Amino acid sequence: MNYLEEPSNSFIRDEKDKKIKDFEKSIPLIGIPWDWSTAGKPGARFAPQSIRNELYSLRTDVYELNEIKFGFNDLGNVRISPGDLNETSRRIISVCDDVFKKIKEKNPVIFLGGDHSITKSILLSLSKFYNKIGLIIFDAHYDLREVKEGLTSGSWLNELLKDNKEKFNVIEIGISNYSNPSYMKEIAKKYGIKVFYRDQIIDDLKDVFYEINKVKENTDGIYISIDMDHLDQSFAPGVNSPTALGMYPHETIKIINEITRNSKILGIDTTEVSPPYDINNNTSRLAAKLLLYSINSYLGNKNG
Amino acid sequence: MNYLEEPSNSFIRDEKDKKIKDFEKSIPLIGIPWDWSTAGKPGARFAPQSIRNELYSLRTDVYELNEIKFGFNDLGNVRISPGDLNETSRRIISVCDDVFKKIKEKNPVIFLGGDHSITKSILLSLSKFYNKIGLIIFDAHYDLREVKEGLTSGSWLNELLKDNKEKFNVIEIGISNYSNPSYMKEIAKKYGIKVFYRDQIIDDLKDVFYEINKVKENTDGIYISIDMDHLDQSFAPGVNSPTALGMYPHETIKIINEITRNSKILGIDTTEVSPPYDINNNTSRLAAKLLLYSINSYLGNKNG
Amino acid sequence: MNYLEEPSNSFIRDEKDKKIKDFEKSIPLIGIPWDWSTAGKPGARFAPQSIRNELYSLRTDVYELNEIKFGFNDLGNVRISPGDLNETSRRIISVCDDVFKKIKEKNPVIFLGGDHSITKSILLSLSKFYNKIGLIIFDAHYDLREVKEGLTSGSWLNELLKDNKEKFNVIEIGISNYSNPSYMKEIAKKYGIKVFYRDQIIDDLKDVFYEINKVKENTDGIYISIDMDHLDQSFAPGVNSPTALGMYPHETIKIINEITRNSKILGIDTTEVSPPYDINNNTSRLAAKLLLYSINSYLGNKNG
Amino acid sequence: MNYLEEPSNSFIRDEKDKKIKDFEKSIPLIGIPWDWSTAGKPGARFAPQSIRNELYSLRTDVYELNEIKFGFNDLGNVRISPGDLNETSRRIISVCDDVFKKIKEKNPVIFLGGDHSITKSILLSLSKFYNKIGLIIFDAHYDLREVKEGLTSGSWLNELLKDNKEKFNVIEIGISNYSNPSYMKEIAKKYGIKVFYRDQIIDDLKDVFYEINKVKENTDGIYISIDMDHLDQSFAPGVNSPTALGMYPHETIKIINEITRNSKILGIDTTEVSPPYDINNNTSRLAAKLLLYSINSYLGNKNG
Amino acid sequence: MNYLEEPSNSFIRDEKDKKIKDFEKSIPLIGIPWDWSTAGKPGARFAPQSIRNELYSLRTDVYELNEIKFGFNDLGNVRISPGDLNETSRRIISVCDDVFKKIKEKNPVIFLGGDHSITKSILLSLSKFYNKIGLIIFDAHYDLREVKEGLTSGSWLNELLKDNKEKFNVIEIGISNYSNPSYMKEIAKKYGIKVFYRDQIIDDLKDVFYEINKVKENTDGIYISIDMDHLDQSFAPGVNSPTALGMYPHETIKIINEITRNSKILGIDTTEVSPPYDINNNTSRLAAKLLLYSINSYLGNKNG
Amino acid sequence: MNYLEEPSNSFIRDEKDKKIKDFEKSIPLIGIPWDWSTAGKPGARFAPQSIRNELYSLRTDVYELNEIKFGFNDLGNVRISPGDLNETSRRIISVCDDVFKKIKEKNPVIFLGGDHSITKSILLSLSKFYNKIGLIIFDAHYDLREVKEGLTSGSWLNELLKDNKEKFNVIEIGISNYSNPSYMKEIAKKYGIKVFYRDQIIDDLKDVFYEINKVKENTDGIYISIDMDHLDQSFAPGVNSPTALGMYPHETIKIINEITRNSKILGIDTTEVSPPYDINNNTSRLAAKLLLYSINSYLGNKNG
Ligand SMILES: [Ca+2]
Ligand SMILES: [Ca+2]
Ligand SMILES: [Ca+2]
Ligand SMILES: [Ca+2]
Ligand SMILES: [Ca+2]
Ligand SMILES: [Ca+2]
Ligand SMILES: [Ca+2]
Ligand SMILES: [Ca+2]
Ligand SMILES: [Ca+2]
Ligand SMILES: [Ca+2]
Ligand SMILES: [Ca+2]
Ligand SMILES: [Ca+2]
Repeated sequence: MNYLEEPSNSFIRDEKDKKIKDFEKSIPLIGIPWDWSTAGKPGARFAPQSIRNELYSLRTDVYELNEIKFGFNDLGNVRISPGDLNETSRRIISVCDDVFKKIKEKNPVIFLGGDHSITKSILLSLSKFYNKIGLIIFDAHYDLREVKEGLTSGSWLNELLKDNKEKFNVIEIGISNYSNPSYMKEIAKKYGIKVFYRDQIIDDLKDVFYEINKVKENTDGIYISIDMDHLDQSFAPGVNSPTALGMYPHETIKIINEITRNSKILGIDTTEVSPPYDINNNTSRLAAKLLLYSINSYLGNKNG
Repeated sequence: MNYLEEPSNSFIRDEKDKKIKDFEKSIPLIGIPWDWSTAGKPGARFAPQSIRNELYSLRTDVYELNEIKFGFNDLGNVRISPGDLNETSRRIISVCDDVFKKIKEKNPVIFLGGDHSITKSILLSLSKFYNKIGLIIFDAHYDLREVKEGLTSGSWLNELLKDNKEKFNVIEIGISNYSNPSYMKEIAKKYGIKVFYRDQIIDDLKDVFYEINKVKENTDGIYISIDMDHLDQSFAPGVNSPTALGMYPHETIKIINEITRNSKILGIDTTEVSPPYDINNNTSRLAAKLLLYSINSYLGNKNG
Repeated sequence: MNYLEEPSNSFIRDEKDKKIKDFEKSIPLIGIPWDWSTAGKPGARFAPQSIRNELYSLRTDVYELNEIKFGFNDLGNVRISPGDLNETSRRIISVCDDVFKKIKEKNPVIFLGGDHSITKSILLSLSKFYNKIGLIIFDAHYDLREVKEGLTSGSWLNELLKDNKEKFNVIEIGISNYSNPSYMKEIAKKYGIKVFYRDQIIDDLKDVFYEINKVKENTDGIYISIDMDHLDQSFAPGVNSPTALGMYPHETIKIINEITRNSKILGIDTTEVSPPYDINNNTSRLAAKLLLYSINSYLGNKNG
Repeated sequence: MNYLEEPSNSFIRDEKDKKIKDFEKSIPLIGIPWDWSTAGKPGARFAPQSIRNELYSLRTDVYELNEIKFGFNDLGNVRISPGDLNETSRRIISVCDDVFKKIKEKNPVIFLGGDHSITKSILLSLSKFYNKIGLIIFDAHYDLREVKEGLTSGSWLNELLKDNKEKFNVIEIGISNYSNPSYMKEIAKKYGIKVFYRDQIIDDLKDVFYEINKVKENTDGIYISIDMDHLDQSFAPGVNSPTALGMYPHETIKIINEITRNSKILGIDTTEVSPPYDINNNTSRLAAKLLLYSINSYLGNKNG
Repeated sequence: MNYLEEPSNSFIRDEKDKKIKDFEKSIPLIGIPWDWSTAGKPGARFAPQSIRNELYSLRTDVYELNEIKFGFNDLGNVRISPGDLNETSRRIISVCDDVFKKIKEKNPVIFLGGDHSITKSILLSLSKFYNKIGLIIFDAHYDLREVKEGLTSGSWLNELLKDNKEKFNVIEIGISNYSNPSYMKEIAKKYGIKVFYRDQIIDDLKDVFYEINKVKENTDGIYISIDMDHLDQSFAPGVNSPTALGMYPHETIKIINEITRNSKILGIDTTEVSPPYDINNNTSRLAAKLLLYSINSYLGNKNG
Repeated sequence: MNYLEEPSNSFIRDEKDKKIKDFEKSIPLIGIPWDWSTAGKPGARFAPQSIRNELYSLRTDVYELNEIKFGFNDLGNVRISPGDLNETSRRIISVCDDVFKKIKEKNPVIFLGGDHSITKSILLSLSKFYNKIGLIIFDAHYDLREVKEGLTSGSWLNELLKDNKEKFNVIEIGISNYSNPSYMKEIAKKYGIKVFYRDQIIDDLKDVFYEINKVKENTDGIYISIDMDHLDQSFAPGVNSPTALGMYPHETIKIINEITRNSKILGIDTTEVSPPYDINNNTSRLAAKLLLYSINSYLGNKNG
């Protein structure tokens, strides 16, 4: 029975075509299919699988840098407890504790959300291993809400910083006009967060680059959190809360290149992708490519 | 400024065209936008509004029976606590306690879910007011799961009956082959539930009518719970868990006509509609019509 | 340059495969792309082309009857005047006058709507040529509204009969519960319309067959008007006003077979298809097949 | 019954989250659900409700300017007469006469179309109150057609200027190559319209800024008309006539900022959104944000 | 790291919930992702994975019969050679030769197409192992075309029988009016195929049952080929060539029950599903359930 | 019968509105509905008709240049042999031989693909008529694969250059990171292809302009091949292989303007559009406009 092969939807018979999954599995990858904190368009629970599909179909060729030399050590998904944020958070932290302990001083860990509330748990773990973490967030929203009850992925950063303000230097990039309550400006100020509105960086990236480099100098390492809704809804239609007049993906790439230059990247996540609202899987495909750009820009810079 | 009117999407200028909302508001209507127990395709949180839109666009003419003479006393939505099942359940019960108390001996109360877990809370309240309730459920699934952790709308009936077995005479109609774990058959037997598989009633409704009438005789009143996924996925595409080879809506109508004949209907719910997965709002439109058929068949029979 | 051919989306190289368009062009076909009377979901202006596409891809083989022997004499579309009902109506009548005059005593004329208001103009023309016309309408709605102002495809039958009551014997088949204002029942009575609700014919077609045959005996010929929304929304999703709990297409076929048996068919229309709301062109495809069934059942019966 | 609340699809429990609708209702807002002049993709009749939904979910925070301090005085929709352009036009003018009279010397009035033909009626009213109006139109099309019969939203500007040329200084921004008949160039010249093709402003906005400022100086106030199809179809998929190679929304924002600087804005409309063709409501969401940007840029500049 | 698990999109934590994949792997399953013979709507290449996803999410409970006791021995996909029908056919035959040899006298082999042309290759292999095979095909089309050049999945049966007429007793069920060229009737007669039009079995299955039983008696075993387009397009929207007025799935189930009663089933395939055209994966979900009904009806009958 | 007209979906009654099809038919246009080499998302077989629809609805007005003065000499589609690449290739070459012979020294020939493999056949013909051809390709992919078996539209350029390296000066523009196997870089080098990654031209077009002009000087004429997937997936969603972080269409326009300035354009194709995956026909509409920009920029420059 020579003509049977593992099922797939790929039909190119090119034996020299290496994909990401064909390389040394050096970059830990963890999915977190949690979307029970979503107040808007649920569905991010399906994103870890959807982004993986796209990630594993990417190839190795890249401009300027050498070709990709790494692969993912795919650890699977955190076994979330559906509807139970506390228990799920405990498990995320437990998994992260193990992974960050092992990986320390080496490669960044990649997380596939899930809604943005997962980032709080990841950072609660990460902060056990470093004194000062540079936290650079791409987001149309502050995520600094103070909710009276219930869950929302729009409050995690406030909850994180309430007790851990001194552990993080935070930059938020891509905040969208008319998409946040006004009281957040004060809370951001209280926590010393550097905020860059989308309209602030459309003509010039100098200011955001300046702050990024200050954070790189003053911290032990950088964590990048990519809420896909920082991108314009035409590029990222499949998200919990789509953004009109959002950022363009090539802007994100330029900023990521600056972040990863001569820095130490501890972890990267991509969150808030909601596949049921996506168009031809565009948002998952874009998330996958942003991750690969980030990692490769970092490793290429580090090793080059 | 004579030419301004309340915004709407309706463009028929027919002054004699009465809609449901134009009548005496005698039937209480309550939305419960909870879908955090959904393990499959989330989105039922949007169904109360979506079904209302369809319900309020229906008209009054009907075959055989006199025209509709009732309207809805729309009490709004239960203020759910996003992600918090216990608190939300407490609130549903609190609201129901008030409503059932007032409405007693009069009209049925209509509930717009939400995922199916809401029915448990409604019935916990209802069971305070009646000794023996006939519970007739349309569903492709037993909803008798025993989950180890987390939430699912597939376990509420088990949880309800665990402590309240003696309060309910239960019939489940439309159970779908290959859509349930086998261990549920035993649990159904333990609780004395009469089960009708979809394939069992395709040629003949005599057996199910017989059991319905036994329940009508032996209880103080009937509660009808319509999980829209008991219908074939071609008729009900917009549900949490679509059913291939499900029931046809005219079968449901015939069974509802038998249930409401010479009976006392305490409440009716429709659950599991997930508008983001719907086609042209078909599933919400069908849910709205099933509700109106149910109420009118009941009131027409009662008053006629 | 032998390898060039007329552009098409068809890729079967079967030279013996005759299609409808390959036969003697004996059945007049006219499109009427008017949907400016639509109060609901506009788009029927695109239906004549969409139904044509499906009609011309159908084949000739059929059960029992001999194979198809006719083709369409496609006269094109009536040049409607966008937004101007009166002028458009005048043109439809003018075109119909010419066609009915020529075709008299021969084959039925086929009309592709457009919203249902077009049928009024067609019948105003047709009534010049016959003393008594049997008008058999498939529709979820009475179309007997009295609107105070503005346009709607829900009033044409009332407007037609107001001045021409004695010219038509009317049967309406498929009226849907809760989809019409109650005052229409009286208007139907006033005009002597025989009404069959959808629920009235689900178990037995005897009564509707009886009335059909009475109309066949007492008129000079039959006009069949098929408003596609008489069908359940799962079969006909792409319509102006979708119908939950509507008819099934095989019921329509059986009734059409009875209508065309030993009768004289003057014309057939299909209306209210709205392609922008359709799924994979299903509603246009179904409309095309219903037309072919109607014509062939008629001609097969007549000639056989 | 404390746990009941007004039905909604919003699930964030943030009491400090003020939305547009929570503020002093100082900006008049009027919907005009007319799309019977649409020759292309109908559906703009649904846009007033669709854009309202998005507008009322926007928040108050904004970069640089102070937070929003105004709300909308939502006057509802003009009661259009379906299919009757003349009567509808009369009503729009009547409503506008009342509103412009009251609002004079204060805030701009916001109009939610509807197809672009509505703008003619608005301006016929507005021109009663001002000697010279600066009319700045974002559009991929000239809208200067001379149609022989029927309706189209592509002729309103010609019809307006025919008798009112001297009342308006007109700039058209975003005209798309290969999307207009060539004879329009002459008509534009005849009316003295300044035309900026989309390709003309992609590298440099200086020229368009220059003309804008000339118009601001030479008129009594500015009316901004935003036909959403001036934007590229990837940003505005849900329109009557989508534009390939159209403008990017950040260009529109920059131009609007220049228009509102030190000017007097009399009214703003957004037209041609066709929700049935939209993707995840993106076009309505973008229209809502463009409106808020326009108003706030104006009021912030005026008050700041 | 206890909280990591294999990635999935399933979120029910029910340990007693056995799925098909949890059982003894006794039924061979082979995917054949070939759709290069599709002349209509390509995409069946993606169906093997899409149907597998649905198949593996089905459960074990079933009415009347005992619960499922078998699982699939999933052999993966045949490594098709994209675009090369001859080579692909050789490989399908090679794989089938191996599998049929091993499985002989035991369980049926399940095939997931792919377009219908794959069935020819399967049967060319199967006919090496049996003298006389009963071939029962559900299809809206004869698949007996004689094409002058090029590929189509509408000619495979003709090509198969041309040289192997005596090896097969063929029944075709569900042939659709106006969907086939008329010359096919003669070819079917030439090959002695028993043909049942869709309209022929809508009221009564007696005749088709009679022929099925004759085939069961006169052959060494039965092969069932389910072209999903025999079903009405409302139930099976995601197919190469959708069928208006097609069969209803409960009819298919009743016929399959008759086929599998006291018979020997050699193989079953499902073909022509085109996932890119599907609605919420309905067609794949239905195909999966038809397969399970077929197998279980057979094994339950055999073992019971 | 004055009011009948040829069927269409267009409803503007503007007699002065000339469309492309109204002009002298001087530019040969050929469709090639072949997609059997597609390894990804099939459907390009439908693109020639889909792009034609858009092309023929475009108008004549254009910025700066004079209005359009040419029309298309639409030769129809090459009669492809479904599934047979060799035979289809032979026919494409045969058609092209005839057309290029006649058109020599005059206008460019326009080709509507089809998948990208068609370009190889076109160029095999074209190279018979010119010594040295400048081949400028817009593509996210190298299309230089060496496949072991089967078809893919990702290998045609390698196959072309293998035996014809000296006939072509090749530039590839828009190559996307992580979308190609790394071994392609070497093959490109071997063939002397100038490669411009998408990221290489985002800030500055000088380098690509320099190479374009070198090619113009050193060849007998230019062939432009536009694989629509070189564009970002938000602009070109309907393609075989969508590209995240792809080019923006205005960049393509600027490059095309440079290519056509003082050059000799021999032919232009657009390939890889897959209508079944498209959004509101956006990708076909964009392809049509890119073609018109290309031709008009060329002819305007040449004649101006
Ligand atoms: Ca966020
Ligand atoms: Ca966000
Ligand atoms: Ca349930
Ligand atoms: Ca259920
Ligand atoms: Ca009607
Ligand atoms: Ca109707
Ligand atoms: Ca306009
Ligand atoms: Ca426009
Ligand atoms: Ca077949
Ligand atoms: Ca078939
Ligand atoms: Ca290519
Ligand atoms: Ca490509």
